[in-house]
Order: sequence, then structure tokens, then C-alpha cells
Amino acid sequence: MNDVIHETVVTTVAPDGTPHVAPMGVRYRGADVILMPFKPSTTLANILAVGHAVLNVVVDTRVFAGAVTGRRDWPLKPAERVTGRRLACALNHVELALAELHDDPQRPVLRMARVFEARHAPYIGFNRAQAAVIEGAILVSRLRMLPAEKVDAEMAYLQIAIDKTAGPEEHEAWGWLTDAIARHRAAASQPTQHTTSGGTA
Amino acid sequence: MNDVIHETVVTTVAPDGTPHVAPMGVRYRGADVILMPFKPSTTLANILAVGHAVLNVVVDTRVFAGAVTGRRDWPLKPAERVTGRRLACALNHVELALAELHDDPQRPVLRMARVFEARHAPYIGFNRAQAAVIEGAILVSRLRMLPAEKVDAEMAYLQIAIDKTAGPEEHEAWGWLTDAIARHRAAASQPTQHTTSGGTA
Repeated sequence: MNDVIHETVVTTVAPDGTPHVAPMGVRYRGADVILMPFKPSTTLANILAVGHAVLNVVVDTRVFAGAVTGRRDWPLKPAERVTGRRLACALNHVELALAELHDDPQRPVLRMARVFEARHAPYIGFNRAQAAVIEGAILVSRLRMLPAEKVDAEMAYLQIAIDKTAGPEEHEAWGWLTDAIARHRAAASQPTQHTTSGGTA
Repeated sequence: MNDVIHETVVTTVAPDGTPHVAPMGVRYRGADVILMPFKPSTTLANILAVGHAVLNVVVDTRVFAGAVTGRRDWPLKPAERVTGRRLACALNHVELALAELHDDPQRPVLRMARVFEARHAPYIGFNRAQAAVIEGAILVSRLRMLPAEKVDAEMAYLQIAIDKTAGPEEHEAWGWLTDAIARHRAAASQPTQHTTSGGTA
């Protein structure tokens, strides 16, 4: 398999129509798209139930930073040909149908066939701050596993690109990430609170 | 001025038709593009002489890594409406005409008006390895100014994204960068060679 991974956003809907927005690293294989959602996950359950997904190519990194800081409520538009929605901010989107499933205890491999695609806005070039937000979002998703010193060193390195090249979206996304790190540290420094311990009320 | 910077490639031609390919961080201001080439530079001289430039939006990071490792000979195609060429690998290109010049001893500010643009291939999403190559190319361009330990630490960090997400283009570009660092170190560890010193011949 070609191991080149592109960071995109996969939107799916549950059988009751509830949408779900999930950043995902995907592989392109010819005209198909390979998704490897974790088991269990809402994305996997929705694709297995509905048979469709939408791949969104996005440069608004708030969607990536939002996914690891509790912000998944992004404007959506109906898909054209499949059961689903696409992100309103997508530069391009590709509507997909499940073609083949290789099950796996952790990450099933879903080969998705291209049903329809549309371009909405041009790509205008690399932005170092966008890349820094993506890397920062990955760090935030691993806060429980990483030593604080490593997180601080990498965030300090990434901050340089934010300071030099970010726009308002990247600054907002970066703020969510630094807030999440501060909250994680504050929670870790608190004495453990047991929900069953006696309160004062 | 909006300080968001996008990393693109600017192609220009000299009055005799010789093309020049230069990665450049640009600013978009409305429909215009702001270029700030260094003085002196071939890009600046060509734009002042010819009045035109082409902005190339590129995701083949070999063009960026090549520029800092002596590889600037990329396939070009003629521009449609201005005197110039565009990169054959550009996803999009924008043909530009010089509209306004604010001179500066180091970096004149050139406001370039959009004459024509075309899309050639879709953007398919963030790739962490591409971002790592861009950052690595910036490091290589600053080897004379940076301590070796800093370069090593940042390259080791960037290597993670290369290992996890790169395709053949990114691996090739990354190899050029690591070779350039090795050559720089080897040259720095040699006794200084004076071209006027007596040889053995």
C-alpha cells in the first residue's frame, strides 16, 4: 500500500441523520480512498450502517484543533449524491461509498469508492502556521502519554511558525490547543477527586 | 497588512528569456499578491525589467528543497497572458503584473495585480511530510547561522513526520536536505582551503 498519508476530515451521518465530523489521515489508492477508522468509533459505526462517507479537504485548521478540544460543530452542507454532509469550509469534497472492508481488531481497512466530487475554493499554498496547528493538535491528542517537557519543547518550536505566518483562524486554533494543555496541567496538579467521596453539601 | 504568509514558488524571466524559479513566502491582499523579494535578487531584477511574474501553488516539496540545495531546473510551461513561465507541477498558477513598488534597502514591497489564473490539479489535503520538508529547507538555508545541536534536534523532530507520512517526492527532497547538512559539516571540519595557496601541481 502507498503509505503517503493526507490529513483530511471525514464526515459521516448516523442512520438517524446525526452528523459526525472527524479529522482522519487517509491514503489515496488510484481513484479509491482508504480509511482506517479506529474500532470502536462513530465514523466506523456510521459508515458500516449507512455505507457512505464524505472526504473533506480542508485548510481551516480550527477543524483539526477543534476535534481534540471539544469543538466539532462546524457548518455542514448536504452531500450531492450520497447519504451524508460535507463541511461548508471544504476546498474540495469527495463523496464515497464503502466498496470493501478488511476487518481488524483495532483499525479495519475500508476501501471507499469515489461517487462524486466537487471543488469549492482554490488552494493558495503552504502555510507554516497551518502545519504547526496540525502538529500541535496531534500533541494535544497525546497529552496523557507524553512528558510535559517534550510537549513544551515541541509547542515552543511550533510557536515560531505561528508567530511568523498565522492568520486569524490559526491563531484561534492555536489558542484552543494552548488552553487545552493548560487545563490538562491544572487537572493533573489537582488532588484526585473521587466522585463518590463525601461532599460538603 | 495581513501578515498571513503562504509558501509558494515565483517564476520570472530575464529580458533575454532566461527563467528563474524561486520559492517565496507571499501575502494575499484582496485580488493582489504582495511579493517582498530581497535586494539584490534575480526575482527582483526580472520583475523590474519585465514587469511580470508567475505565482505557482506547488505541493511537490522538491522545488523548495531543491532551491536550497542547488536544484532549480524544473519543467516549465509558457504563461498564457504575461511574459513568463509557470511550473509544470503547479496545482494552480496566477499570472501577475507589477502594479505598485515601495522601495526598501533590503526588501522592496511589490504589489502585483492578477492578470490570469488557472487550476491544473486538485489539492488533496495536508501532508505532514511536506510541511517537514518546508521546515527542513528553511533550516538548511540557515545552516551558517544555526548551532549544529539546534539543527540536529529540529531535523530529528521533523524526521518523525517523514517516516510516518512521506511519499517518494518527500523522501527524495528530505535526502537532499540531509545530504546538504552532511556536506556542510564535512566542509566545516576541513582545514580552510585558500584558492590562492600553493598547490602540489
